[in-house]
Amino acid sequence: MGAAQDLFSRSGFESASVSEICKLAGISKGAFYHHFPSKQSVFMELLTEWLGGLDKTLEGLRNNQPEVPQSIIQMSEIFPSIIKAAEGRLPIFLEFWVHASRDPEVWKTAIAPYQKYKEFFIQMMGEGIAAGSIVEMDKETAALAVMSMAIGLLLQGIIDPAGSDWAGVGRESIRMLTDGLTRRST
Amino acid sequence: MGAAQDLFSRSGFESASVSEICKLAGISKGAFYHHFPSKQSVFMELLTEWLGGLDKTLEGLRNNQPEVPQSIIQMSEIFPSIIKAAEGRLPIFLEFWVHASRDPEVWKTAIAPYQKYKEFFIQMMGEGIAAGSIVEMDKETAALAVMSMAIGLLLQGIIDPAGSDWAGVGRESIRMLTDGLTRRST
Repeated sequence: MGAAQDLFSRSGFESASVSEICKLAGISKGAFYHHFPSKQSVFMELLTEWLGGLDKTLEGLRNNQPEVPQSIIQMSEIFPSIIKAAEGRLPIFLEFWVHASRDPEVWKTAIAPYQKYKEFFIQMMGEGIAAGSIVEMDKETAALAVMSMAIGLLLQGIIDPAGSDWAGVGRESIRMLTDGLTRRST
Repeated sequence: MGAAQDLFSRSGFESASVSEICKLAGISKGAFYHHFPSKQSVFMELLTEWLGGLDKTLEGLRNNQPEVPQSIIQMSEIFPSIIKAAEGRLPIFLEFWVHASRDPEVWKTAIAPYQKYKEFFIQMMGEGIAAGSIVEMDKETAALAVMSMAIGLLLQGIIDPAGSDWAGVGRESIRMLTDGLTRRST
């Protein structure tokens, strides 16, 4: 995994070959294919590893805070660390997505983490609606509103890291959205 | 331009060569390079052409509506048409961004449209704050909040078009954010 990560960073996802990964890791191709069906699957495992930390962070923030609106606001504090973690990885991510977008099977695996986050937020917003802290509305719509804001902030932060104070913008944007989610004009 | 667009759609941005574009368009390489310094610049012109319609639509919506919050809400109605317009273009876009992310000069051109939209929204939010229809706050933060929501919605709609009712989610999400932008909890 370390060898693959190094090679992807250096040569990009496209140029990195399974042979090179094996050479760098000091393993045989047989050993490689015993663990991974393809180069894509190594990348997916790396992605899962990177995202694994985020999963746990979000769950921890949720579990430490009974109120859903406060959970959302606390989650906005982790934007800077996600933007930082993505630093220098944009070309590899993009290359991987080019591959994925051309192969329906890879695509399905590639968007699986997204579907998992969606479930997490639907569950959370459902809890908030049930508890009365989030306004009465469709829980999927509420979840997608929060995810849209988060994804848009992260993407801009990754594309243009110096373009704004993303920590401040993230905090303020999520606070305004949460304000709209908890109260409603008549 | 039509030839380049056809070829990019069929072969992808990477595989499409200037020679092929010229052959398909029935022009000489000299004529091509008279108009475009590179393949990237053809793509940028296509992108500008696609985005040109969006520029005008946003400006039209803004000019027909004196109140900024109402302008934002009306803008949320165009999400479905943008998602539709991006249909089938994801691989080409991603490939172009892979190139751009590896070349600082191309990158600067590639994010220019983003900077333009940012200016548009900063200007608009500034007007709303001045008019008192948007809560007193930093106009760039307000602009980036709206853009984040829009970008996140569009990205999810493009990645997973059948995953949700994006027209409805777009309308609701923007309405909730606008609600937070116009009123504030104490």
